[in-house]
Amino acid sequence: MIFTVQIKVMPLKDLLDPQGKAVMGGLQNLGLNNVSDVRIGKHIDLQIEAADKEAAKSAGEEAAKKLLANPVMEVFEVTIL
Amino acid sequence: MIFTVQIKVMPLKDLLDPQGKAVMGGLQNLGLNNVSDVRIGKHIDLQIEAADKEAAKSAGEEAAKKLLANPVMEVFEVTIL
Repeated sequence: MIFTVQIKVMPLKDLLDPQGKAVMGGLQNLGLNNVSDVRIGKHIDLQIEAADKEAAKSAGEEAAKKLLANPVMEVFEVTIL
Repeated sequence: MIFTVQIKVMPLKDLLDPQGKAVMGGLQNLGLNNVSDVRIGKHIDLQIEAADKEAAKSAGEEAAKKLLANPVMEVFEVTIL
């Protein structure tokens, strides 16, 4: 069975996010002054063939650990649809 | 009140996603052969000051339309936490 696995990779809370800071400046220049913080990360959708949800989730976690997220700077979250 | 607004920006389904293709190749080289498709987009977390959920959501949609997503190539989805 094929599962859709979503992986969200975000910069760690303690680290600066210069891309987010730049976007916040841009939004304020566009008149959206009620935005107080912006963090930007990656969203990855995988189609994974697996026997069940658990197996799909562990394959997604393996993918995130091995390739998609850098544990020094990023934290990831895996969800199955 | 401050709301956390999540915006997911993904490449349109009909368009090629070369970054996703490259990641799929990388995963297969690492031995994850059960991955059949990868799409990569952005995930943006905003802190928005608004009167209620509806107002926060429409501010998030405005931000996505004006700055965060390119409607020619991307589709976005706004959720409030």
